[in-house]
Amino acid sequence: MMTTDRHTDPEPWEIIESRYLYKEPWLTMRKDSVRLPNGKNIDDFYVWESPPWLNVIAVTQNDRIVMIRQYRHGIGKVSFELPAGVHDKPGETLLEAAQRELLEETGYGGGSWTKWMELSAYLASGVCKISEQQLDATEEITVHPVSVEELSALVDNGEILQALHAAPLIKYLCSLKS
Amino acid sequence: MMTTDRHTDPEPWEIIESRYLYKEPWLTMRKDSVRLPNGKNIDDFYVWESPPWLNVIAVTQNDRIVMIRQYRHGIGKVSFELPAGVHDKPGETLLEAAQRELLEETGYGGGSWTKWMELSAYLASGVCKISEQQLDATEEITVHPVSVEELSALVDNGEILQALHAAPLIKYLCSLKS
Repeated sequence: MMTTDRHTDPEPWEIIESRYLYKEPWLTMRKDSVRLPNGKNIDDFYVWESPPWLNVIAVTQNDRIVMIRQYRHGIGKVSFELPAGVHDKPGETLLEAAQRELLEETGYGGGSWTKWMELSAYLASGVCKISEQQLDATEEITVHPVSVEELSALVDNGEILQALHAAPLIKYLCSLKS
Repeated sequence: MMTTDRHTDPEPWEIIESRYLYKEPWLTMRKDSVRLPNGKNIDDFYVWESPPWLNVIAVTQNDRIVMIRQYRHGIGKVSFELPAGVHDKPGETLLEAAQRELLEETGYGGGSWTKWMELSAYLASGVCKISEQQLDATEEITVHPVSVEELSALVDNGEILQALHAAPLIKYLCSLKS
């Protein structure tokens, strides 16, 4: 037996009742009452629905990685992040959304884009600054093109607080080693 | 100027009003009305409060990494995960919580434990199976001690769906290369 076999997988849960608590522009939350395969019930399983997030590792022509700093009210801190956004515009492809977010948040564009991993839409190589930032009224973002060594130190020092950003960056740093 | 300088950091937001929408065992959610440094207001900024999550990379004496599979109702899927839990027991240290979660979810323990990264509490080397699983009534978990090659394939195939788990695992795989 392969240790990665799935024939022993837990069964899905049965939804007995489902009710939306909120359907606001920035909060879609429902409360499910569910029955587990073992017969137990959970009456208050909360599910927070969200559009897909995407982020971009953008590498400049002189091998700098375009990081941003942004205030996150949830944790009350500013930290290093990848340019990122939600994929919620009808008719826009994932690639178009990624390129738009990079341009709006940093002014960078161009380069060649390839799919990187599920947790990070694209790796863009050879980008350069082609415009000013185009920020929403509620966005305040500073742009930091960092060297590979600086990025490595940011990861090691725990300055990338969002796992969705840390995972693809560590994969990128690792790919440079081999 | 270092590109990682912080003197240009965005300022924190001012909280005008803050109200808890929910304070349930599994859902603590508040709605803040905030003023940004640029003078703009956001009246509906939702903050979901959560106790700290922790997870463990547990490596057995014959170099297998102890992965689990678990049904996640939010996405309606079973996927590979690290043994993990929340750190919410008063008086319990982070290390004790990590060792308890590994034991309860997988039956593995022992070995030597070191801090790994902010996104993953501990790397445990040389663990072995010392008991049966001790699952909550609402937990259904299968245990999969996978080889380094199998883990690498799981990451490459996008089978680690949670970024909080992917980041430390990629860092671990990368550390084996150097």
